[in-house]
Amino acid sequence: MKIREEAHRMKLISPKLAASTNEERNKALKAVAGELVQHKEEIFEANHKDLDNAKENGISDAVYKRLKFDEGKLNTVIEGIHQLVGLADPVGKVLLSRELDEGLVLKRISCPIGVIGVIFEARPDALVQISTLCIKSGNCAILKGGKETANTNKVLFNIIYKAVVDAGLPEGCLLQAEQHNEIDELLQCEKDVDLLIPRGSNAFVQYIMNNTKIPVMGHADGVCHVYVDKDADIEKAIPIIIDAKTQYTAACNAAETLLVHRDIADKFLPKAAAALANAGVKLRGTKEVTDIINAEEMTEEEFHKEYLELVMSVKLVSDVNEAVEHINKFGSHHTDSIITEDTKTADYFMQMVDSAGVYHNCSTRFADGFRYGFGAEVGISTSKIHARGPVGLEGLMTYKYKLYGTGQIVDDYATGKKNFHFKEL
Amino acid sequence: MKIREEAHRMKLISPKLAASTNEERNKALKAVAGELVQHKEEIFEANHKDLDNAKENGISDAVYKRLKFDEGKLNTVIEGIHQLVGLADPVGKVLLSRELDEGLVLKRISCPIGVIGVIFEARPDALVQISTLCIKSGNCAILKGGKETANTNKVLFNIIYKAVVDAGLPEGCLLQAEQHNEIDELLQCEKDVDLLIPRGSNAFVQYIMNNTKIPVMGHADGVCHVYVDKDADIEKAIPIIIDAKTQYTAACNAAETLLVHRDIADKFLPKAAAALANAGVKLRGTKEVTDIINAEEMTEEEFHKEYLELVMSVKLVSDVNEAVEHINKFGSHHTDSIITEDTKTADYFMQMVDSAGVYHNCSTRFADGFRYGFGAEVGISTSKIHARGPVGLEGLMTYKYKLYGTGQIVDDYATGKKNFHFKEL
Repeated sequence: MKIREEAHRMKLISPKLAASTNEERNKALKAVAGELVQHKEEIFEANHKDLDNAKENGISDAVYKRLKFDEGKLNTVIEGIHQLVGLADPVGKVLLSRELDEGLVLKRISCPIGVIGVIFEARPDALVQISTLCIKSGNCAILKGGKETANTNKVLFNIIYKAVVDAGLPEGCLLQAEQHNEIDELLQCEKDVDLLIPRGSNAFVQYIMNNTKIPVMGHADGVCHVYVDKDADIEKAIPIIIDAKTQYTAACNAAETLLVHRDIADKFLPKAAAALANAGVKLRGTKEVTDIINAEEMTEEEFHKEYLELVMSVKLVSDVNEAVEHINKFGSHHTDSIITEDTKTADYFMQMVDSAGVYHNCSTRFADGFRYGFGAEVGISTSKIHARGPVGLEGLMTYKYKLYGTGQIVDDYATGKKNFHFKEL
Repeated sequence: MKIREEAHRMKLISPKLAASTNEERNKALKAVAGELVQHKEEIFEANHKDLDNAKENGISDAVYKRLKFDEGKLNTVIEGIHQLVGLADPVGKVLLSRELDEGLVLKRISCPIGVIGVIFEARPDALVQISTLCIKSGNCAILKGGKETANTNKVLFNIIYKAVVDAGLPEGCLLQAEQHNEIDELLQCEKDVDLLIPRGSNAFVQYIMNNTKIPVMGHADGVCHVYVDKDADIEKAIPIIIDAKTQYTAACNAAETLLVHRDIADKFLPKAAAALANAGVKLRGTKEVTDIINAEEMTEEEFHKEYLELVMSVKLVSDVNEAVEHINKFGSHHTDSIITEDTKTADYFMQMVDSAGVYHNCSTRFADGFRYGFGAEVGISTSKIHARGPVGLEGLMTYKYKLYGTGQIVDDYATGKKNFHFKEL
């Protein structure tokens, strides 16, 4: 019952952290940066233990790279913290100020969400990023990282927590969950945890979404499309497809499906196929596609697939409308791009595709908080509730209504003795 | 399986409704208003059937009043529709416009959420209000009303749906669920329904929240507090308490608990108790309270209780801090008010109480979309995700990111060949 009790305690502490000033939170962030540098040998030593264990368990090179926390990664997270310090205070913004009647003023003020549970992959830099994002936004956080980096996480968390509390932020504002079974306990804290942010594999995120009543921000799938219209500029289309598919195949915003207008298939597909083959991409497609290029035949239902590797589905469509219908049916409402020189067709596509990001003549890989200029990214949401698409600091904020009166009662307005006059201030 | 198939169809139709213009949606709303007046006798006749059935089942006067749909209620909903027509278009607002690099422009554009499921109490006017709010905001809706008004709902829905489709909005943009067992089917449509708005009893809303993966907007409890500080003006405090408790006891924003500063208890409590008794309110309190006034003794745990009738819990506290702690622990994060002449104490209370509405010297009953000047109310949310507090049309909106490129790929930025310059437009 540890996590449940801690979450309850944190919920009651959260208004105190929410009341801290930007100055206090920035001071804590600077202290974190300083202490991380101060204790870097300790961190690297813990990380070596994790890396040794990982080697013994025979993990892949890609995972090894993610686990590793060295001087370079330390510098990157320190730079990130200094960027956060420089960002405007997201807390206490006046979003609305309205006089309802004489002496009765309504204000909508931005404030932290409260208690956020973050369950993230085995990447030590993620722990630093996430905890500092929560501090900057005035949110308490329960952090659970991957077990493969348990030693590094423990050292990092202790340094961060001590720095934050020594700098004057409330005790208990951050908590690390270390046991895997604590995740299930965390999922049941719907009374005290306001938001969950899971990061990791699709199956893992889906598991979280299916097993909690706490609102979840994130995405399970990223089935993104590139649609090459009959009026596409092929010189633009091919590099965009290569980038969208291969620049980082494991990313959620990598393209999985290529849709091609039937009118240009004979001309375009062989060129695209050659470029994709050259980039190491294996193609799969409908019968119609395999009649034109060398590709493995696939069924309609398989268009739901997110490969996350050098494989791409290909389909021909009769027009932009069929492309839109395919995307809305088989996609995951993440990010989809049209390649065309006809702006009317592009506008139609961008209006009708029901996704967080709808792009014209550029790669789906741009769907990212840093590339959107948000400074720091919490994650990417495919939900239509709260934040959608790449989410920056503002995704960690809510607001409250403050109503300043001078003795007003509703009965006077219900009986017509008084009237609202709604004046924006 | 009817609802599930219909919801899936609606999901694919929703981008068409989202693409309609404000003019088209307003035209449909005006047609609805016209047709409702045109067919009023038909509506009243159906309503008589419902009222006759209700009488046979021996329902209370209060419920009878809610079921009734007469000339007065018709006029009110017609007026509401005309107000909606007059509101600014919530769709297509440019919320952000930023040049990421030369020829690469990002826009954040407001758009409808998509498919909304609304399950509401037996009030025919609610069906009209909710369906027209969805039309104005460009959202498809699945509507399920209370079975006690089944006849009225059927006639109203058919009139509204025909008017909307005849006016040119997409077929299938509204759907009425008529069977109670269809609710459970609706709760399972997480792939196609983007948001659920349940209205009704606490137990019912809680049931919905516990049995679906679809995001739910609303609130289960409304345990609202009035805290009378040692520096309160008693002339203000008493009418506010009476209004907050009695002006409409069944409302979620009615006060359930009175907290009083110990320093003024001896002076204030007898006066308050007399006024509340005069208004028919039965008091319950801790031992300390029953020592001062005539009240039923209660236990600490009972402070979680939402009475929704003429009963009020009373407790003494040592200071504003104890009041805040009590509210954050026992309240439902809805709306809480402090009565004091000390603005510093008020500011502290409004900062630290973790509720959607924090009030100073006025009644909790002001927590309402109309009273906040939002024009039309969807409901009141105690969640911190998406909309919080009274929710107007904007609670039915999300946004999408449109990225306009000219052939850009991410690899050029990852390798440093190009750089973002982030210019607000």
